[in-house]
Amino acid sequence: MFRIGFDVGGTNIAAGLLNESLDIVQRRNVPFSNGKGGEYIASVLAQLVRDLTGAQCIGAKELECIGVAVPGSIDRRGEFVIDAYNLQFHNVPLRSQLQVYFPEVPVFLANDANAAALAELHKGAFAGCKTAVLMTLGTGVGGGIILNGKMFNGGNGNGVELGHSILSHNGELCSCGVHGCVEAYCTASWFVRQGRKAVVEYKNSMIYTSARGSMDNVTAKLVVDCAKEGDHIALDIFDRYVDALGSAVTSMVNILDPEVIALGGGVSLAGDFLFEPLRENVRKKVFFPAFGRIVPAQTGNDAGVIGAAMLKVNAE
Amino acid sequence: MFRIGFDVGGTNIAAGLLNESLDIVQRRNVPFSNGKGGEYIASVLAQLVRDLTGAQCIGAKELECIGVAVPGSIDRRGEFVIDAYNLQFHNVPLRSQLQVYFPEVPVFLANDANAAALAELHKGAFAGCKTAVLMTLGTGVGGGIILNGKMFNGGNGNGVELGHSILSHNGELCSCGVHGCVEAYCTASWFVRQGRKAVVEYKNSMIYTSARGSMDNVTAKLVVDCAKEGDHIALDIFDRYVDALGSAVTSMVNILDPEVIALGGGVSLAGDFLFEPLRENVRKKVFFPAFGRIVPAQTGNDAGVIGAAMLKVNAE
Repeated sequence: MFRIGFDVGGTNIAAGLLNESLDIVQRRNVPFSNGKGGEYIASVLAQLVRDLTGAQCIGAKELECIGVAVPGSIDRRGEFVIDAYNLQFHNVPLRSQLQVYFPEVPVFLANDANAAALAELHKGAFAGCKTAVLMTLGTGVGGGIILNGKMFNGGNGNGVELGHSILSHNGELCSCGVHGCVEAYCTASWFVRQGRKAVVEYKNSMIYTSARGSMDNVTAKLVVDCAKEGDHIALDIFDRYVDALGSAVTSMVNILDPEVIALGGGVSLAGDFLFEPLRENVRKKVFFPAFGRIVPAQTGNDAGVIGAAMLKVNAE
Repeated sequence: MFRIGFDVGGTNIAAGLLNESLDIVQRRNVPFSNGKGGEYIASVLAQLVRDLTGAQCIGAKELECIGVAVPGSIDRRGEFVIDAYNLQFHNVPLRSQLQVYFPEVPVFLANDANAAALAELHKGAFAGCKTAVLMTLGTGVGGGIILNGKMFNGGNGNGVELGHSILSHNGELCSCGVHGCVEAYCTASWFVRQGRKAVVEYKNSMIYTSARGSMDNVTAKLVVDCAKEGDHIALDIFDRYVDALGSAVTSMVNILDPEVIALGGGVSLAGDFLFEPLRENVRKKVFFPAFGRIVPAQTGNDAGVIGAAMLKVNAE
């Protein structure tokens, strides 16, 4: 049997056909113009299903399920996209809109961050876990929670918003309008802001040189690379990042005591340079003498596709 | 059938015999000198079991289970008290030490804050809930989590330490040695510290008058009562407390989206004067348009006894 997973983003749709080992044996990546509504996107997804199964010469009876991950909130029953701002979706019955094309194949819907946590459970850092937390450190901070060996969608079905737990009461303003959220401190965007400040304030820093004096050239990777080279301005930024992320991870450990905390997203690509001081920072702050592992997420850009494909298994 | 629950504190033991409606039909409260070890306390508990059952004329076959709540960490299997500093207990096999007295009656062991959450589930604010969070606002901040309709003891069995999630990154020093924990801001002790400052700094405040000019007379209740009377120094303290507690509750909502968050402990006795502005504060900060109820805990001083008595049900 095969499974199909979709990861619908604001600008493109990633699609994958997975075999029973959860290898993606066919994949597609198509640009997507949003704002055209649920009927339209369902038709695009339906065409991709035909395309993927056709390319692998698979009949309808060999397709176990179809899952769709979207960057938004899903109702408790998994029928509607309540809000997905990037897609301009509000109360869109996407599950049934896709289901009509394939009446015999179960269709599932989930939030993309939740789906990513599910991908880590079935083919990544959470293998065998009952309790685990994923935090994705990108433009924002997303995340998902595994509880009792299943994807957790919040006690009221609101999902989980780890990036909007509060790290610094009355601290920096977050994009959500509240002060001090984890997302105000632990994103790739935070590195960019600090790096730009350095370009303005420290013309002798490696950040200034690497960015050729232009704020527009500053990326999170540029700042991290300068820190790796030993530039003390960049190292100071990096150390402050690790300390803030360490506090955010500490809270998750003291609240849920997860077996594994996995970090994904662009910042996590810094590798041991990030994970080694982070583990040490968390070890100093956590209440328990022994606690779970802090590791890189493993499913990377395939997280949404793999997680979406596993939604039927999660529901069983 | 009847159940017995014990709540072992640093200075006394509360014991209760519960009927099937979870009413405490017999209760005892005995002083307890700690430091004498597990064998001794097991013998005291065994005598209390005989006393409670004797007073109700109950035979051994009518006793369904015995549960013990202790202020410390319990191993994953529920056999040992790993650390209970107030009891000077370290790696004490208390379950089996009590079990030997009653070979036919199942004996259970749990952390007291977890037991309190279980009490709310079976006879309090969490009735019918699958996902709920209890925070107790006393000398420290304790708490327990209900997940999937069961007491949650952490993914690795470390328990949960809601009071040591981080509210203010690099903020005030907590008793645990880390900066910025919830416990550094949301306790009754915080009110005492702020009230004492007011006695020193604001001789025109009602706090000064009510405390008759002595820091030793300041209690959390005194500060809250002055705020209720409209004293502006006390109101400022109270508002800062509500804002900090609001941030702590917001984090729990955004992480777990609980159906109910219940607040217990001394500070929660302030009633609507606390809960009404708190709900408004949280509403402004939470990510979700609709979220769970924020209510007073209901089981009060009986929380540990009731929760301990329900440990067998929780394990089923």
